[in-house]
Amino acid sequence: MNLFEAIEKRYSHKENFLPTPVPIEHLEKIAWAGITAPSGVNRQTVRLIILPDREMIDPIHEITPHGGVSTTPAAIVVLTDNTPQDGMDFQKEDYSAAMENILLAATALGYGSLWLDYPFFDSERQIATKKLLQIPENYHLWAVVPIGKPDSPGSRREKLPYEARVSYRNFGGTK
Amino acid sequence: MNLFEAIEKRYSHKENFLPTPVPIEHLEKIAWAGITAPSGVNRQTVRLIILPDREMIDPIHEITPHGGVSTTPAAIVVLTDNTPQDGMDFQKEDYSAAMENILLAATALGYGSLWLDYPFFDSERQIATKKLLQIPENYHLWAVVPIGKPDSPGSRREKLPYEARVSYRNFGGTK
Repeated sequence: MNLFEAIEKRYSHKENFLPTPVPIEHLEKIAWAGITAPSGVNRQTVRLIILPDREMIDPIHEITPHGGVSTTPAAIVVLTDNTPQDGMDFQKEDYSAAMENILLAATALGYGSLWLDYPFFDSERQIATKKLLQIPENYHLWAVVPIGKPDSPGSRREKLPYEARVSYRNFGGTK
Repeated sequence: MNLFEAIEKRYSHKENFLPTPVPIEHLEKIAWAGITAPSGVNRQTVRLIILPDREMIDPIHEITPHGGVSTTPAAIVVLTDNTPQDGMDFQKEDYSAAMENILLAATALGYGSLWLDYPFFDSERQIATKKLLQIPENYHLWAVVPIGKPDSPGSRREKLPYEARVSYRNFGGTK
């Protein structure tokens, strides 16, 4: 799919997914897109775990009963290495750029997806999910991205008009 | 350009740019890509300023004499609205996802680009650049993205192998 079409079509899929399995080759292509995003000082802090079926998603749903993980047939877990380095911390930038690539790649391959982060802001759920997936102490779990065929079509939420967000030459400057 | 080709070809252009102007339609398409990225709770905190020529880039280069802004014929300034809301702060995620779209869009249109953030970590330079561009107090300036035709071909920096960053079912799990 063309880049601009993928950007246009990407949306947060908050409804159910069909149980249709996602081929592992697709999940790997989406993961490749994620780790190919830029990273601060090229430190490549992002690590991903592919969950190709419900085996580990069911227990995640038990830990955090969020709709996003209730029906999805597959998911990708997004982590960063949180080992401190020279006082520079680009984990959030790294993971967010990787996330955008993951969402665009899922869209391009015809899947719905969701940037599902907030259940893991809760430290008990963060700890329980890390334990379940055997994630070492020095990695932060940012998000679990459900990936699957939507059971109904969806679309991007409404956005502010272009003119309200983009200006020219200085803040508020018009063309 | 195909999404996956854009992801593959994107790299940090740290060398010089040709003086060839970037058509405003291209800068607007790149800006559109940026503001069409997802944002936390759909708050759309990102604002962009298009700098279509050297008029404002020259004084930015005086404030922060970084190679990235020494020759670029155009740039996009990336800001977020930093007004606190309900204790939730997604500015860094919002700007980083928008940034990845900007870099991919620039790549797809045949331009070199760079995620140039660190000169603006310095608060004096942040303040001076905000003053220059008439950016209000309640916006944070994250980065200035040079966009132009590279004067020599470049490529992505070396990355860790896929196997070192992606695992299956649990951390470190193999296929």
